[in-house]
Amino acid sequence: MKQVYFTAGPAEMYPTFEQHLRSAVEQQLGSISHRSQKFRSIYQFTAEQLRTLMNIPETHGIFFTGSASEVWERVVQNCVEHESFHLVNGSFSKKFYEYSASLRKYAHKQEKPFGEGFDYAEVEVPEYAELICVTHNETSSGVQMREPDIHKLKRSNLKKLIAVDMVSSAPYPELDFGVVDTAFFSVQKAFGLPAGLGVWIANEKCLAKAERLQKYEDATIGAHNSLPMLWKNFKNYETPATPNVISIFLLGKVAEDMNKIGADTVRKQTEEKYKLLNKYLETSRAFSPAVAEERHRSRTVVVANTRIPSPEVIAQVKVANMIVGSGYGPFKDSQIRIANFPAVSLEQVEALIGELKKLEN
Amino acid sequence: MKQVYFTAGPAEMYPTFEQHLRSAVEQQLGSISHRSQKFRSIYQFTAEQLRTLMNIPETHGIFFTGSASEVWERVVQNCVEHESFHLVNGSFSKKFYEYSASLRKYAHKQEKPFGEGFDYAEVEVPEYAELICVTHNETSSGVQMREPDIHKLKRSNLKKLIAVDMVSSAPYPELDFGVVDTAFFSVQKAFGLPAGLGVWIANEKCLAKAERLQKYEDATIGAHNSLPMLWKNFKNYETPATPNVISIFLLGKVAEDMNKIGADTVRKQTEEKYKLLNKYLETSRAFSPAVAEERHRSRTVVVANTRIPSPEVIAQVKVANMIVGSGYGPFKDSQIRIANFPAVSLEQVEALIGELKKLEN
Repeated sequence: MKQVYFTAGPAEMYPTFEQHLRSAVEQQLGSISHRSQKFRSIYQFTAEQLRTLMNIPETHGIFFTGSASEVWERVVQNCVEHESFHLVNGSFSKKFYEYSASLRKYAHKQEKPFGEGFDYAEVEVPEYAELICVTHNETSSGVQMREPDIHKLKRSNLKKLIAVDMVSSAPYPELDFGVVDTAFFSVQKAFGLPAGLGVWIANEKCLAKAERLQKYEDATIGAHNSLPMLWKNFKNYETPATPNVISIFLLGKVAEDMNKIGADTVRKQTEEKYKLLNKYLETSRAFSPAVAEERHRSRTVVVANTRIPSPEVIAQVKVANMIVGSGYGPFKDSQIRIANFPAVSLEQVEALIGELKKLEN
Repeated sequence: MKQVYFTAGPAEMYPTFEQHLRSAVEQQLGSISHRSQKFRSIYQFTAEQLRTLMNIPETHGIFFTGSASEVWERVVQNCVEHESFHLVNGSFSKKFYEYSASLRKYAHKQEKPFGEGFDYAEVEVPEYAELICVTHNETSSGVQMREPDIHKLKRSNLKKLIAVDMVSSAPYPELDFGVVDTAFFSVQKAFGLPAGLGVWIANEKCLAKAERLQKYEDATIGAHNSLPMLWKNFKNYETPATPNVISIFLLGKVAEDMNKIGADTVRKQTEEKYKLLNKYLETSRAFSPAVAEERHRSRTVVVANTRIPSPEVIAQVKVANMIVGSGYGPFKDSQIRIANFPAVSLEQVEALIGELKKLEN
């Protein structure tokens, strides 16, 4: 019996995944050269579908890495000489901060308790920070930072670069790439694909910074997947090393499927399912929203406090072949996380709520 | 019509690839958590199958990265404080050397003209080099360094670490992991799987070095996929970030298939096919071996000089649904490269030779 994964990534596969995978196998995409025209066409197609879906202008390149976690490292290596600044409100934004410190940068942070989010007005950016790192959607705590707040943050710090971690929300957020310098995500979240590919979007300002740093004798922008090397190859729709060709193909096809529905419709469907889940949690006797402020509640990873231990909740819905995630870290036993990605339908969300209701008594 | 890929990677898929991929999809492995027991069991199975196949002792951990190129970077970051030493005899061993220089290490090299290989006796290791980097199989030039020479090199430099790039030969070479400290490969070569996974084997000496470097305030071992972090997670058969779960599963299954045949038999089959190809090239009127010294000729990537321009050769065999690779870089038009990986059978190699013979007139 097939299970429906409401987990926050790896997650439920997009409904067309199997069909596209079969097509990849039939076309022998596991064997084609990454220096062939066939590969270049796949890269170009995927980049164009992502441009349409996420409104990414030509000022930004679209690159592929092994994972989004790798991009945390690449962004800092390529865009920071001395100081980075991080808004930390959960385990993944904290890891981004820790990566910068591991790379021996002066990493500043402004931190919130788990479950709380940031508004623009309260953010204090250190004077010498070169890069502002924000997490649009904290997978661990279910907290979001709203796009207008992200945009204001950049507009009031025009000389600094801004990086947006949209790992567990892309393509949902409407980022304005007129102001967002770099953003990144992985495919095993809202795109509903198997893990093994990170996507990095970066503009010419990031490239210029990396090229400047590369010339300093006492600095390093890393060796593998450096931004200048990725960009140089990207101009021909190639990659510096052999990439995950099949995953790039699948991403392009799923992005195309979403474009057929329309980005706005995909967003509206996400919001509709979110409202259903949120309303249920607000009125439930067994659950409550883990994030107090509604404006900070993630639309794609809904986190709930549970009255009974969450392993019991997880075990109960599993009987109905539904998989929900446990809370993260210290909240493992007191919270559940429900991914609200495009791969799960309104009907499946309704069915999940039906199962959760059984736990009210 | 299906084509047979004799390319050096991405390459022909292993005969059981499709069957294992179907199994992965049926088990919904794209959706399972990388913190689940199911994933830990997959990691453990794959590691155990690789230990059997390649005779890897428990002193060595087995880790997963985005690609083997990434491992070039990780090896240098984690095992070199100041100086590395590289045997360069082609484009990929040169890239390994360049990665070290990009990381601001003092990278020494001993270089051979394209198509020539190294013997132990001629290697001069710089006194202060901490890491000796050798390429067992140069994918670009078709040159190999024989295992006994690699082992002697380490035995006469016991205080240094040795790293073996076996990207386009693993699991063929019989490396003695009693002396080899670290080695790595990717799955799109001799394992016959789609690209998107690097495999890094490293021992406790490498770990100790990385842990020492990590404590220095002015050094960095990188942030993503650092050896201490990989090792800590490996103890529980986990990974620091979400890995390419399906690829790890496929690798374990293909390694198991090879173990059923037996590592020795897989090697003997490789040698049998190599001898057939080599004998043909030595006696052909249209081709000749690109590597002069027989002992330096790769057993897994056979490179030939062509009398007529190689694009014509490639186009001709393509009519028979066979894909051979062009020469690398400046040899693009004057050489062909024929992968001799386990995924291609003796009969397929014989059929390829039959096609090549048609070009003799």
